[in-house]
Amino acid sequence: MDNNITGVKTPNGVFKPYIHLAKYYETDKMAVIHHSNYIRWFEEARVDYLEQIGLGFDVIEERGLYSPVLGVSCEYKSSVRFNENVIIIPKIEFFNGIKMTIGYRVLDADTLQLRASGESKHCFVTTDFKPVSLKKDYLDMYETLLRWTGVDVM
Amino acid sequence: MDNNITGVKTPNGVFKPYIHLAKYYETDKMAVIHHSNYIRWFEEARVDYLEQIGLGFDVIEERGLYSPVLGVSCEYKSSVRFNENVIIIPKIEFFNGIKMTIGYRVLDADTLQLRASGESKHCFVTTDFKPVSLKKDYLDMYETLLRWTGVDVM
Amino acid sequence: MDNNITGVKTPNGVFKPYIHLAKYYETDKMAVIHHSNYIRWFEEARVDYLEQIGLGFDVIEERGLYSPVLGVSCEYKSSVRFNENVIIIPKIEFFNGIKMTIGYRVLDADTLQLRASGESKHCFVTTDFKPVSLKKDYLDMYETLLRWTGVDVM
Amino acid sequence: MDNNITGVKTPNGVFKPYIHLAKYYETDKMAVIHHSNYIRWFEEARVDYLEQIGLGFDVIEERGLYSPVLGVSCEYKSSVRFNENVIIIPKIEFFNGIKMTIGYRVLDADTLQLRASGESKHCFVTTDFKPVSLKKDYLDMYETLLRWTGVDVM
Repeated sequence: MDNNITGVKTPNGVFKPYIHLAKYYETDKMAVIHHSNYIRWFEEARVDYLEQIGLGFDVIEERGLYSPVLGVSCEYKSSVRFNENVIIIPKIEFFNGIKMTIGYRVLDADTLQLRASGESKHCFVTTDFKPVSLKKDYLDMYETLLRWTGVDVM
Repeated sequence: MDNNITGVKTPNGVFKPYIHLAKYYETDKMAVIHHSNYIRWFEEARVDYLEQIGLGFDVIEERGLYSPVLGVSCEYKSSVRFNENVIIIPKIEFFNGIKMTIGYRVLDADTLQLRASGESKHCFVTTDFKPVSLKKDYLDMYETLLRWTGVDVM
Repeated sequence: MDNNITGVKTPNGVFKPYIHLAKYYETDKMAVIHHSNYIRWFEEARVDYLEQIGLGFDVIEERGLYSPVLGVSCEYKSSVRFNENVIIIPKIEFFNGIKMTIGYRVLDADTLQLRASGESKHCFVTTDFKPVSLKKDYLDMYETLLRWTGVDVM
Repeated sequence: MDNNITGVKTPNGVFKPYIHLAKYYETDKMAVIHHSNYIRWFEEARVDYLEQIGLGFDVIEERGLYSPVLGVSCEYKSSVRFNENVIIIPKIEFFNGIKMTIGYRVLDADTLQLRASGESKHCFVTTDFKPVSLKKDYLDMYETLLRWTGVDVM
């Protein structure tokens, strides 16, 4: 597999998979990556994904918006160990302008074996935590997220 | 509310709620506790809970067992902020000797307002990650977990 | 040892040692607590200490001040393991109204064996990161910190 | 600056600087990266560095060795913020076959401005924590570390 090219076109070229190298400080005394870190990896991959589709944090924050996490879940299939590379693949599973669900698959970067899968649920709020409707107030963001909903980047 | 006494009897007295003081290093740039930490708080409360019902890590590990996390989920209801105390209340929702689901409620310790709820799913394995049936091989652990299944400690 | 009473008088009674229970998620694959967590424990103990001497975060923040970390160091003497209690004992080693150094000892709560020692260096800034002199602008904070400089709480 | 090439030759080519993208979950409520994470970044860069000079964790662990951290320190010069890239540059400052000190500089990847500097101190032990002399027992590791002592990779 060529890790650099998936063929899915983005505003800046083609989608590049997000790769995380499992850190020593992420291990626990079972000698595997502690399960809480996967939730952080989802966030890393989400930030990268949104940036690649044109909705980087700078774009979102300059409008005075946050996208808080309403819920997360993860199912662990097989352990990730120190110094292994994993690919984390996000996908917008659901989006209606007010709420959004992003799904994630975590694959071993060498074997592409599934390590974990999960999702995170989001809404959109102003920096003083008032909910907003993207469809009503931020139409370009709405259209971007809608365009990517259901699209497999890998 | 008297935080020290719930009235539920344990092998060592009565169940004591698990309280976590939200740490500065757990905050993020939204000035609230980062969502990934709740997954860690579940673990803290689970360790404490198992110890209180007589299944402390020392007990489990001296038998050469681990109880890995097969899945986690959390729904966030309202933010926890730095230096706030939360009570995390575990409950064995499901247990059949092979798999176990523990549910959690996270409450503000002052107002008892619900901050989050979630669950974790577990199995039991030997230290070389071979699955075991508690009912078959560790009857006392099986009976203890069964006795607490569905019991509200608070 | 009576962990609850040191005899040192504070505005709210007597100084209570800060105890941290080492968490599972703080372990690493050497089956000991990962060294980075001690830096976080220093912060926990510092927050607690400042609160006990009357300078809780609420007090500092309501004046629009931060106390950023200019430097940290830690020397590791012996490992802390999962589920062990440690006492973390802060002491203001140096304070001149502009800069402050706090030292820390980390002791096993059962044996009082030294696990680690270290220090953190701080200044005081407004929330837009402009340096302030406590002696000039916040005399009561200045006097409190000066009074505790060099005082052993345990 | 060409981030990929420093010109310093390694067993596998030329030394590649280690770059870390500051994560959202690494921020704190001051809206900057929490200071404890730099200690983790040092570790990331150390693991990468040792691998590049031919002493990857696999090499060290297959000999039944650990290299525990005896001490760490960090001085913070200017804040790192979310989504900024930093370059972390390790250098063996001292090595005598028994103890080793590695220094680190953390630079902004765009401006090369110094964000922080620090060091970590190490010894070498067997997996049951018995100290070893590399000079006596692991001559090739000794010679490799000696060869890199004092060498600037960037």
